[in-house]
Amino acid sequence: MACCGRCFCCQCCCREGETRTPEELTILGEIPDEEQILPRKDYESLDYDRCISEPYVEVLEEMDNKKAKKYEAVHWMMVFVIGVTVGLLGLFVDFFVRLFNKLKFTVVGDSIEKCSDKGCLSLSLLELLAFNMTFVFIASVLVLIEPVAAGSGIPEIKSYLNGVKIPGIVRLRTFLCKAAGVLFSVAGGLFVGKEGPMIHSGAIVGAGLPQFQSITFRKIKFDFPYFRSDRDKRDFVSAGAAAGVAAAFGAPIGGTLFSLEEGSSFWNQALTWKVLFCSMSATFTLNFFRSGINFSKWGSFQLPGLLNFGEFKCPDGDKNCHLWTAVDLAFFVLMGVVGGLLGALFNCMNKYLAKYRIRHIHPKAKFIRVLESLLVTMVTTIVIFAASMLGECRDLSTPTAHNTTLAGSEDINSTIRQFFCSNKTYNDMATLFFNPQEAAIHQLFHQDGTFSPVTLSVFFFLYFLLACWTYGVSVPSGLFVPSLLCGAAFGRLVANVLKVKLGMDIYSGTFALIGAAAFLGGVVRMTISLTVILIESTNEITYGLPIMITLMVAKWTGDFFNKGIYDIHIQLRGVPLLEWETEVEMDRLTASDIMETNLTYVYPHTRVQSLVSILRTTVYHAFPVVTENRQNERDFMKGNILISNNIHFKKSSVVSRAGEQRRRCQSMKSYPSSELRNVCDEQSAAVEPSEEGEDLLQQMLERRHAPYPNLYPDQSPSEEWTMEERFRPLTFHGLILRSQLVNLLIRGVCYAENQSSTNQPRLSYAEMTEDYPRYPDIHDLDLTLLSPRMIVDVTPYMNPCPYTVSPSARISQVFNLFRTMGLRHLPVVNAVGEIVGIITRHNLTHEFLVAKLRQHYITI
Amino acid sequence: MACCGRCFCCQCCCREGETRTPEELTILGEIPDEEQILPRKDYESLDYDRCISEPYVEVLEEMDNKKAKKYEAVHWMMVFVIGVTVGLLGLFVDFFVRLFNKLKFTVVGDSIEKCSDKGCLSLSLLELLAFNMTFVFIASVLVLIEPVAAGSGIPEIKSYLNGVKIPGIVRLRTFLCKAAGVLFSVAGGLFVGKEGPMIHSGAIVGAGLPQFQSITFRKIKFDFPYFRSDRDKRDFVSAGAAAGVAAAFGAPIGGTLFSLEEGSSFWNQALTWKVLFCSMSATFTLNFFRSGINFSKWGSFQLPGLLNFGEFKCPDGDKNCHLWTAVDLAFFVLMGVVGGLLGALFNCMNKYLAKYRIRHIHPKAKFIRVLESLLVTMVTTIVIFAASMLGECRDLSTPTAHNTTLAGSEDINSTIRQFFCSNKTYNDMATLFFNPQEAAIHQLFHQDGTFSPVTLSVFFFLYFLLACWTYGVSVPSGLFVPSLLCGAAFGRLVANVLKVKLGMDIYSGTFALIGAAAFLGGVVRMTISLTVILIESTNEITYGLPIMITLMVAKWTGDFFNKGIYDIHIQLRGVPLLEWETEVEMDRLTASDIMETNLTYVYPHTRVQSLVSILRTTVYHAFPVVTENRQNERDFMKGNILISNNIHFKKSSVVSRAGEQRRRCQSMKSYPSSELRNVCDEQSAAVEPSEEGEDLLQQMLERRHAPYPNLYPDQSPSEEWTMEERFRPLTFHGLILRSQLVNLLIRGVCYAENQSSTNQPRLSYAEMTEDYPRYPDIHDLDLTLLSPRMIVDVTPYMNPCPYTVSPSARISQVFNLFRTMGLRHLPVVNAVGEIVGIITRHNLTHEFLVAKLRQHYITI
Repeated sequence: MACCGRCFCCQCCCREGETRTPEELTILGEIPDEEQILPRKDYESLDYDRCISEPYVEVLEEMDNKKAKKYEAVHWMMVFVIGVTVGLLGLFVDFFVRLFNKLKFTVVGDSIEKCSDKGCLSLSLLELLAFNMTFVFIASVLVLIEPVAAGSGIPEIKSYLNGVKIPGIVRLRTFLCKAAGVLFSVAGGLFVGKEGPMIHSGAIVGAGLPQFQSITFRKIKFDFPYFRSDRDKRDFVSAGAAAGVAAAFGAPIGGTLFSLEEGSSFWNQALTWKVLFCSMSATFTLNFFRSGINFSKWGSFQLPGLLNFGEFKCPDGDKNCHLWTAVDLAFFVLMGVVGGLLGALFNCMNKYLAKYRIRHIHPKAKFIRVLESLLVTMVTTIVIFAASMLGECRDLSTPTAHNTTLAGSEDINSTIRQFFCSNKTYNDMATLFFNPQEAAIHQLFHQDGTFSPVTLSVFFFLYFLLACWTYGVSVPSGLFVPSLLCGAAFGRLVANVLKVKLGMDIYSGTFALIGAAAFLGGVVRMTISLTVILIESTNEITYGLPIMITLMVAKWTGDFFNKGIYDIHIQLRGVPLLEWETEVEMDRLTASDIMETNLTYVYPHTRVQSLVSILRTTVYHAFPVVTENRQNERDFMKGNILISNNIHFKKSSVVSRAGEQRRRCQSMKSYPSSELRNVCDEQSAAVEPSEEGEDLLQQMLERRHAPYPNLYPDQSPSEEWTMEERFRPLTFHGLILRSQLVNLLIRGVCYAENQSSTNQPRLSYAEMTEDYPRYPDIHDLDLTLLSPRMIVDVTPYMNPCPYTVSPSARISQVFNLFRTMGLRHLPVVNAVGEIVGIITRHNLTHEFLVAKLRQHYITI
Repeated sequence: MACCGRCFCCQCCCREGETRTPEELTILGEIPDEEQILPRKDYESLDYDRCISEPYVEVLEEMDNKKAKKYEAVHWMMVFVIGVTVGLLGLFVDFFVRLFNKLKFTVVGDSIEKCSDKGCLSLSLLELLAFNMTFVFIASVLVLIEPVAAGSGIPEIKSYLNGVKIPGIVRLRTFLCKAAGVLFSVAGGLFVGKEGPMIHSGAIVGAGLPQFQSITFRKIKFDFPYFRSDRDKRDFVSAGAAAGVAAAFGAPIGGTLFSLEEGSSFWNQALTWKVLFCSMSATFTLNFFRSGINFSKWGSFQLPGLLNFGEFKCPDGDKNCHLWTAVDLAFFVLMGVVGGLLGALFNCMNKYLAKYRIRHIHPKAKFIRVLESLLVTMVTTIVIFAASMLGECRDLSTPTAHNTTLAGSEDINSTIRQFFCSNKTYNDMATLFFNPQEAAIHQLFHQDGTFSPVTLSVFFFLYFLLACWTYGVSVPSGLFVPSLLCGAAFGRLVANVLKVKLGMDIYSGTFALIGAAAFLGGVVRMTISLTVILIESTNEITYGLPIMITLMVAKWTGDFFNKGIYDIHIQLRGVPLLEWETEVEMDRLTASDIMETNLTYVYPHTRVQSLVSILRTTVYHAFPVVTENRQNERDFMKGNILISNNIHFKKSSVVSRAGEQRRRCQSMKSYPSSELRNVCDEQSAAVEPSEEGEDLLQQMLERRHAPYPNLYPDQSPSEEWTMEERFRPLTFHGLILRSQLVNLLIRGVCYAENQSSTNQPRLSYAEMTEDYPRYPDIHDLDLTLLSPRMIVDVTPYMNPCPYTVSPSARISQVFNLFRTMGLRHLPVVNAVGEIVGIITRHNLTHEFLVAKLRQHYITI
């Protein structure tokens, strides 16, 4: 307790920190059981709101419209560069995946063709195993280097855009491991996609590029050190993630909406426009180079995204063919329901698997994870191989009039596999299994030749199980393509039944597409962005309605059972994600019900020793800057420079109506306006009779501060405080962050007791943000360099006007403000300006609100 | 001044109201010259923020999750119904326009065919004139009935979505006049489109349908009277407007983005999803019925929007044909620049014209407007006719392999005109002029046969001038189609020059499309929504990049000269529109620089006579509810029930840290938790020793309220107030709207002096909102029914926790909060909880900020 003696924290130290005792958790109804994983307290929020401290204001004052335009131009350029880079990254990934796949399938395919006669198939299997396990081993080792690179990365990006700082997810090392890892995991024949990792990589490019420029090339200095804040970084991450989606699916609008849906606080038109531009740049960069490399048609744009669905089109001659009709909609709704159920099942199984992994695999040695990935690879490879041998041989009878996908793209029949089948027939199972997944999707969407229902069922079943097992293994792994393929098989199965068994006149490709949408929707539960991504991938606006309806139904059905897969993984990680809105019921609570009341305060002028002690003994990230309300302040002022400075600050900072009116009158007096001047003169006259240089109004202001027995606790130990002292009214003046305080101390920003606070050294905005994003720790501070009796004036560096709420504000109001403005700390201030609590992200998570609501019901 | 004696307004009455004296305007630098039209003060904001008053809380308390779900279902159903209705409306408009056009062009066309031999062309002209003038006369008369129905309606909808209440724009009468009027103005051969009016009509459907249901069929009552607020109305208007765009262009995503771009405050995922659903419903309803009616193919979906651009496609055999290549992008950028310049010219001319109309036509008798429309019609008709005679005869030589637009749609050659030309040739000018505009656009986009450069130039020139003249005439008139047609002619001209003169290998249709985009972008300056609308209309994602780049360049070029046409018309109307963000420079101002300081206050408990006098002598729409800070409150309380009630309210409403802590402890005591209970008991023990039933903390709280000489001014006349009295500190407790106060008075919500305030009758939420949206006026109040000495307790009905800002908050912060949350009044509250001013929309308009900034520069 010795440390507490010097600090200003008003609560006893035993309850410091942002953790809850088991005692409290029980009270809140939060039984820390194994089943429910609660949001962890150690995640921080990003700081999207700007801190309008004095150094920032200085930057603003220097900022004229010309500079603003220059800065804007740099911003646009940056966004363009991000887009192009993400496009090139997509190209890189695509090129190598194709290369590896071609190598693998050529070698193994040849071997099978040979061996199906000679009977040496086990040799072919060994070849395939060797390829796959080597690739996956590399991917898995890369993930060992940077564990954050595992999985699809969408949960992480979603959390980041939601405003949660997750360590390491936007680091260069993560980028390298992710981008290289996904190559090998896809080439390794695992049932994983490259879209999720593309999005994550895009986001890292967005976060890193603008920063990189200012760290490595210090000479290229922007006049405005503006990108070095969470706000700008998050904007760029939005753009990068959107570019990732755009490159992956050839869906620039969908990518933009993805970023907005996941991340945007308020609808910022300028940002949206930039994000769309970034997405377009990415799509068309990729398109340009792929068209150039694949067809040597430089300058044309023919291959939109890494994944595209080809062109859905009726045969030219057939006037009775429709892609879909109103009658089909009923089937689509049913497929949506089934897709939602299947998705919920998938998520449920994957959740149990993930929990098992957290409990039994992650705590063990790291190489166990590599072994797991190799095991999955082995099983997958054997299944592929065995299933391919069991496929049916189908006729290639139907005319292939409309079997071209995109003009100039590969013919769909080029990916047909004839394993173990005679000429003019093909092995349907092998065609699906023994191809890159994109080719299999194309087969299901566009192949006129039928697949047998048995093949489709077996394929769906095996794929479903293996994909579910694979997602969560420690390799970079997307989920979009496996889900689409799985769903497409389901859709094609429905189409087969309707067309062949019931003899209906339908277009199989549409059913495959709707099946894919239904299953994907059931798994990921995204809404508007997924709709638009799928519409853009099909490049057919008329699919809008069926896709939307299917996704809606799938989402609603799935939501009945559990959350989307990404939300499940976010929850398992304990990330305090904020939902879109609170439930209506939550509005029974008010801000005062959920706020954190155990705060540690800082005075405007504080001794170094107190600051150090506060910083070393608490883990709070922000400290309210407060002054006390006491009578006879003038008496106090005489004794002590610290107290007098604090009281001075308070007096000068309170803008009263009278003071405001006086200021206005003074500024108006400089104008030659007769009538108004008279009014003002009159008012000034009334103000004039002052004593000791301070006017009547000022006195009135002072007199309002009521009696209070205690001294300013310059040395008073907190243990001995009475109740009165503990809960004395504190006027709220601003908020200062831990990182800012540490920065001030490390840079020696303070003044001696016998000096005026104007002697304190001033930091510029650049100096304040120099260490972004990794600020030094208080324990790095060399105390011998600082005299503990020096005083720090924090007021120029605090945020003097954060958004605040009243204690009686309803949850929906608080939530909207917090989420929309991207806040980190939201002070709760009562009607007379006293701080009564602080609300952070952790006080607004669904779990916390539910617990508080339960408590509310018990109390009333 | 007699009235002022009874009111609480702290400023003298001569400056009440929201108008500024010329004196002040001069000071602010706002010289009220003829050139600059300043935002008018008489527009009100919509109230998007929820008022969490007690009746609303009661509704919330009743709301369990089941009810919330039911309500949600009703909301979805409503949105669906709006979508379908807008789709049907589009069908109706389309059907009749086609019918009238067919009638007209068949009759006149036949006559011309005959007369070109016989030489009776003047007869044909007369026939055409008769048709056109009759149609336009009807349209014009409809607009006389409801003047708001004139023009495109997009400026009005944009203002509404921005949060400005414009009288009459969402009324049923406006809807009828607009929907019927646009039929006739389009059929009348004017150079106007039906898209703008469709959007406006859609918005009215959105605003009206959910209200209608609850007014006419009172028996169908929702348990939750939820749609009767500005918030819900605006959400539905977003959906309706989006549906309008979706139906007009077959662009559901574009429509959704249009609504978001123009209207959305924060990005509300649930709302976005509903808006997209609404748009989809509208598109596909229209599509379903049009496909059914036009091709008798019920159940298929082949004709997306009222306006679609047909399919851009290379001839099947041609492998070297590209829609566009990277080289073309350079031309597109140049075309964007030219489009921006032309658009700026168009806007400039139209602005002068509009100003002329405001000054010289609108003040005159109404029939003058009808005459003007007839004059425009006459000139247009004669120009069409004369120009058609001058067209060149071109060969129909090229094979028309890819001239089919949409599968099954009319052949493009069916709209070719052969006037005055021999067989196998066609009259190119007549083909453009003597067709519905949509057909002409299709010709320019898809006709392989060339148009002569002279024809295109003449067409462009005439069309440009006439379209500019027409927009603003008092008929319902859209601007999209004329701009597209005009721009397409320009693009086709460029294509002609490049292809024929320079021999480049380009696709003419693409250039026509890009020309159209450039000109349209230069005129309307919309960004992301226009991009998406155009991409969706072409149904070709590969056009994304060129369209986006063209629009960007066109917008930037145009913005160099003036604003978009809609913004110009909004400005001319003096609507206080809020931009997307403030300029960086504005951040030199703080909230206290721009706030309105002349406020009229209300006490929590106020006499009826005072309220009536305040309401009758001021025009403010909101009144801060305040209490005063004074010492010896206990003495005051003894004398007067009014004062004692006010002081009681203040005491009970201030949530202090101590009180908060106590509350928590008490609620915790009901749990069997050993450690925590001990802590709390200890604290309660410290609190226990109380005197007169009030504890120490409560006393501390009281003591803080400082001495103040004056009495609560129950009767004190404001004229005699000294400076001190005028600017006495007032603690802010909440905000009450004029409409709420009037409602309370009319329903007799008050209590007698000798009663307790709990005797006051209570209004339910339904009663509070019953009269929405037209609340009674204070002058409708029958004073004889009320005793002037009765007291009204306004606290249950005020908004106790509106968002507030600190006086030192920067403009960007204030602006973001205001705009994002859709506020109407934003109180400025200082560090000790006193209200110092209020910010409304008018304090945040660009013009006001510029004036304040100028003043700021002069002062420093």
